[in-house]
Amino acid sequence: MNSFYLKSYVENWRREINQALRCYLPDEYRRNGVVAAMNHSLHAGGKRLRPILCIAACEAVGGKGADTLPACCALEMVHTYSLIHDDLPAMDDDQLRRGRPTCHIVFGEATAILAGDALLTKAFEVLADHAALQAPEQQIRWMRIVQHLARAAGCKGMIEGQMQDIHSEGRRLGMEQLEQLHRLKTGALIKAAVSIGAEIGRATPQQTQALNLYAEKIGLAFQVQDDILNVEGDPEKLGKNVGTDRYRGKNTYPALIGLEAAKTRAVSLIAEALRALDIFDTKTEPLRAVADYIIDRNR
Amino acid sequence: MNSFYLKSYVENWRREINQALRCYLPDEYRRNGVVAAMNHSLHAGGKRLRPILCIAACEAVGGKGADTLPACCALEMVHTYSLIHDDLPAMDDDQLRRGRPTCHIVFGEATAILAGDALLTKAFEVLADHAALQAPEQQIRWMRIVQHLARAAGCKGMIEGQMQDIHSEGRRLGMEQLEQLHRLKTGALIKAAVSIGAEIGRATPQQTQALNLYAEKIGLAFQVQDDILNVEGDPEKLGKNVGTDRYRGKNTYPALIGLEAAKTRAVSLIAEALRALDIFDTKTEPLRAVADYIIDRNR
Repeated sequence: MNSFYLKSYVENWRREINQALRCYLPDEYRRNGVVAAMNHSLHAGGKRLRPILCIAACEAVGGKGADTLPACCALEMVHTYSLIHDDLPAMDDDQLRRGRPTCHIVFGEATAILAGDALLTKAFEVLADHAALQAPEQQIRWMRIVQHLARAAGCKGMIEGQMQDIHSEGRRLGMEQLEQLHRLKTGALIKAAVSIGAEIGRATPQQTQALNLYAEKIGLAFQVQDDILNVEGDPEKLGKNVGTDRYRGKNTYPALIGLEAAKTRAVSLIAEALRALDIFDTKTEPLRAVADYIIDRNR
Repeated sequence: MNSFYLKSYVENWRREINQALRCYLPDEYRRNGVVAAMNHSLHAGGKRLRPILCIAACEAVGGKGADTLPACCALEMVHTYSLIHDDLPAMDDDQLRRGRPTCHIVFGEATAILAGDALLTKAFEVLADHAALQAPEQQIRWMRIVQHLARAAGCKGMIEGQMQDIHSEGRRLGMEQLEQLHRLKTGALIKAAVSIGAEIGRATPQQTQALNLYAEKIGLAFQVQDDILNVEGDPEKLGKNVGTDRYRGKNTYPALIGLEAAKTRAVSLIAEALRALDIFDTKTEPLRAVADYIIDRNR
């Protein structure tokens, strides 16, 4: 798959995902409505990284990408809710995300909290509604997907990561603690995206294991690269301010091991992710391309 | 069932529910941990009204109350999350609930937001984990319960009610608008508790319809009585301040139709709820007792 086809692969799926999201959550033209706030953040130019990973993992094991769409929407809803709550004044107090004012800036804090709550709730509704339409054997599969998602997002996953992040500001972490934080905060949902795709595609245990390793590595690489971009990224292309981590005394890879060592780490994590895909045939090209994109996303 | 047996019925089930909650969310002795914050609010002396309703509805149609325990815990987690978020400074800014400092007062705002998020997520995890252990026919039932809960809690249910509540402060509502607000804000979850109990007990459509009517009426009565207690309740028995609605310019039944008319309305709603139970045999005594308790809870 050359870069031209890859670009259209991602763009086509992005369009499908956005359409599906609009179906699950049709716009309502009420000012200040909670659905308007949900859609503001849901359609704020997100890259749909987690859904694309879910689709690509499903296809890598021979499944049909389109079968994952309800899970893709649930993943993106959970991701978006986490961004809305992370941006709140009581958390990171961010006013800009992807170049647009954050949810609480546009709709106020109370509505932003509720919009996040509603997206999280909607994610499970979407999965349960889809499951209810399936044959019994498929229902069991979708129930497992609910389990995956809830565990990844919950108090032993993403939320615990965000807790560790908040409570470590201004306090120096070791490398192991920092990786543990990211494994939870961003890694858990990325890993869930890949394993949900594998589940829908009916992966063998060996395939699932390889995909989990891939997901673990790109999840960490994603965060290392995020830290690097916060040092030397282009604010216009990123759609957010840079230099903020340092200002806030955040624990980052560049702060901990230096910028050059962080870059080396990102590259070697991606190499490890790609190696994990060696057991597959060419159907992993989208997964490989996503791994490359993680390092290249400032260009 | 006389009042002595009823009291022990409720107390026994409360103990079972609390034990089940502890199993799903064992205490972790880490200071500032998100699980500690979740448990602070989960075990803050709540009456377990929604779980008791779920059990009583299940038993009314001949089901086993104990079969509902996972759903009871999920209902209480969703209810507790909504209280934590409602109490936040950006929402109602309450510092006291059931006589204890609210979650954000003890753990800080960021942790309180995350504790609410985590309880909501855990509710769905509990349901999916339970479903995954069932025979196929039962799995479908539990998937429907996930649907019920998500719909009741989501942006067309409880969250929409909270939105309407926030955006109507200081603005005069008509009676119809006020009832619509409460039907969503507190009614939706109460109704879900009863219909989930009915679902687990394998209610007939006629029984479900009667139970829904009962739930609708006690849900509204609960809110009318809440408003009345905010005017003339005993702060010590209630565990919260009174007179706050008037101070905040909240839309309440006493403000809209006067205190005496509000009391009459509460009594007649309870009478309607009890009438809805006439199709059942004596197994509805706990449901009847809950209805009576709603009016009597300041004693």
